[in-house]
Amino acid sequence: MATAGKVIKCRAAVAWEPKAPLVMEEIEVAPPQEGEVRIKILYTSLCHTDLFHLLESTDNKGFPTILGHEAAGVVESVGPGVTEFKPGDKVIPNSGCQCRECKFCKSPRTNLCERSWVNDHIEYMSYPKTSFTCRGKPILQFTNTGTLAEYIVIRQIYVVKIDDDAPLDRVCLLGCGVTTGYGAAVNSAGVTPGSVCAVFGLGAVGLAAVMGCKNAGASRIFAVDINEKKFEKAKVFGATDFLNPKAYNKPISEVLIEMTNGGVDFSLECVGNTEVSRLALESCAKGWGLSVLVGYTNTDFSSKPIQLIYGKTWKGTLLGGFKIKDGVPKLVLDYMSGKIMLDEFITQRMKLEQVNDVVKLMKNGECIRCILDMSK
Amino acid sequence: MATAGKVIKCRAAVAWEPKAPLVMEEIEVAPPQEGEVRIKILYTSLCHTDLFHLLESTDNKGFPTILGHEAAGVVESVGPGVTEFKPGDKVIPNSGCQCRECKFCKSPRTNLCERSWVNDHIEYMSYPKTSFTCRGKPILQFTNTGTLAEYIVIRQIYVVKIDDDAPLDRVCLLGCGVTTGYGAAVNSAGVTPGSVCAVFGLGAVGLAAVMGCKNAGASRIFAVDINEKKFEKAKVFGATDFLNPKAYNKPISEVLIEMTNGGVDFSLECVGNTEVSRLALESCAKGWGLSVLVGYTNTDFSSKPIQLIYGKTWKGTLLGGFKIKDGVPKLVLDYMSGKIMLDEFITQRMKLEQVNDVVKLMKNGECIRCILDMSK
Repeated sequence: MATAGKVIKCRAAVAWEPKAPLVMEEIEVAPPQEGEVRIKILYTSLCHTDLFHLLESTDNKGFPTILGHEAAGVVESVGPGVTEFKPGDKVIPNSGCQCRECKFCKSPRTNLCERSWVNDHIEYMSYPKTSFTCRGKPILQFTNTGTLAEYIVIRQIYVVKIDDDAPLDRVCLLGCGVTTGYGAAVNSAGVTPGSVCAVFGLGAVGLAAVMGCKNAGASRIFAVDINEKKFEKAKVFGATDFLNPKAYNKPISEVLIEMTNGGVDFSLECVGNTEVSRLALESCAKGWGLSVLVGYTNTDFSSKPIQLIYGKTWKGTLLGGFKIKDGVPKLVLDYMSGKIMLDEFITQRMKLEQVNDVVKLMKNGECIRCILDMSK
Repeated sequence: MATAGKVIKCRAAVAWEPKAPLVMEEIEVAPPQEGEVRIKILYTSLCHTDLFHLLESTDNKGFPTILGHEAAGVVESVGPGVTEFKPGDKVIPNSGCQCRECKFCKSPRTNLCERSWVNDHIEYMSYPKTSFTCRGKPILQFTNTGTLAEYIVIRQIYVVKIDDDAPLDRVCLLGCGVTTGYGAAVNSAGVTPGSVCAVFGLGAVGLAAVMGCKNAGASRIFAVDINEKKFEKAKVFGATDFLNPKAYNKPISEVLIEMTNGGVDFSLECVGNTEVSRLALESCAKGWGLSVLVGYTNTDFSSKPIQLIYGKTWKGTLLGGFKIKDGVPKLVLDYMSGKIMLDEFITQRMKLEQVNDVVKLMKNGECIRCILDMSK
């Protein structure tokens, strides 16, 4: 393309500091270097991890930054040494990577990659290095992506090529939340046919977890949220029982234990709240109950040792346990063949300039996913 | 026997209240009721759970009680409906049970039993019902056993019959600590051949965990303790590397991560200290590291969510995951055939009257296991 090898000037929503509105700016995006790909972002959405960083950060670590890590687009140009991609390829950039060469990538037991920013830069939620500048200052790429920009540069190990016919305005959701929640159930928890599950938190991640439990053959799926408006949607994804913790005068874990005669086989915490994590573990059946911590937060999680001694297991999940290059393209095909739902997650469509409205909607629990059309 | 059907008066060491010395008393032991067995205890030892209850209890819950739950003896008489045992049988009473009828006993996934006191009486560390009285007062049986008495009454689901030739003065150790530590490694952690392990705390449970790691084929076993005197013993059981956390000016988890190029595959916390539990989890390899909480305490354990999100797993163990009636008799045979060690755990032999000396030795870390000969 005509822009190859040159700096691209384009629009982006910049988070200059925590707890402040995003600011629409013109930014510069450097050409891709060795092993990097420059992507024209066509559709993106916000995820609660973006919100958490923006709204809950207590210092300036990881700022200024460009948020956004759930997106789809086409390759604009590639740097030296890139053989896997060519301009025009439909792709999904990810906050996780798969180098195929490290001890993690070579093991079937994990989707972690030794080269991921997650290993060494979790405090900043991004690599120190960035391809963005604005007003003469480097701007970080949140979780190595930064898809609230019209163009991003990203290492090829973080990018997956997807089917040429994939509808980007929907499969963009597979960049993070849906993949995470769905995989938390089918991979990390390993939900078994006939089992009883509970999903805490019915945002996109939680709803995807419900869908995962359903597709894995769970016989009963409890959907737990303090916002009852979300129950209707949870039903669409396969939930069978609906619980509002505020409607009971005892911990919801006790309610679940009573309703299931001992506790659930699998629980998935999709809120990112360590008090909820504790309840999720306590809701599990003694003997074999397994709880997966899906929502990210940096507060300590805790419980009483007896919970584990009873035979419960506590795990976590990163991107639902999917190795991105193996998993995400298959999920795109699963969507195209009707095996998984995506349209049902989309509650609004807007343009990039409206991003602060999306933040507001998400804060108020009035949005599952809003797709931003970057061409508008 | 001549005593069958009658109350037996015998000696016992009574814990009248927390933090006070045990008192030698004459107690009354009721005849066994429906489904119960009365056992003449021949050898017993103290375990850190006894000590914890005695020394750390902050109220009188679970007092007065008779401690001791690691013992061996012979059946004196049986109550109505007992078909599995007859007077003279060599047995090990346990603090765990196996009814063979409940959903847990019917599942291969757990050694929990629905009928165990652990489910409903963990706060008191015993059933409210007891067969002991002393000076006109009921005296609880700590963890349903109370083997610091010459005779105990116990439900048959808590008792295992062992080989007629088993040396009771040694296999008594299979009543709790050794079984717990060994099983934590071979069952709960599922240590794999060639793996790298770390065992935190080198009391009897920790040493048994080292032995479990070794028997499961671990290639490297780190023994971690602040008491370096214990390293020699750990070597006997199979440890290959020895770490004193006090010798480093950084957390021992960081030391382990450096020494193993990323962390251990399996860690076992055998102290019962939640700060150590945290270090044990943090010492694990990202991607697949698994930490087992073995030591019991009622303080919250905690860590950062990222530890689980990295792909680590946190589990616990109760009696090493052994279903007692299936597992303990086999461990007795394993000892008799030389597959597991027991003699090496025994550092002292004393008589019941010296029990307060044993408490002192254990507090000071000068005793792995002291066998009390109840006939003396």
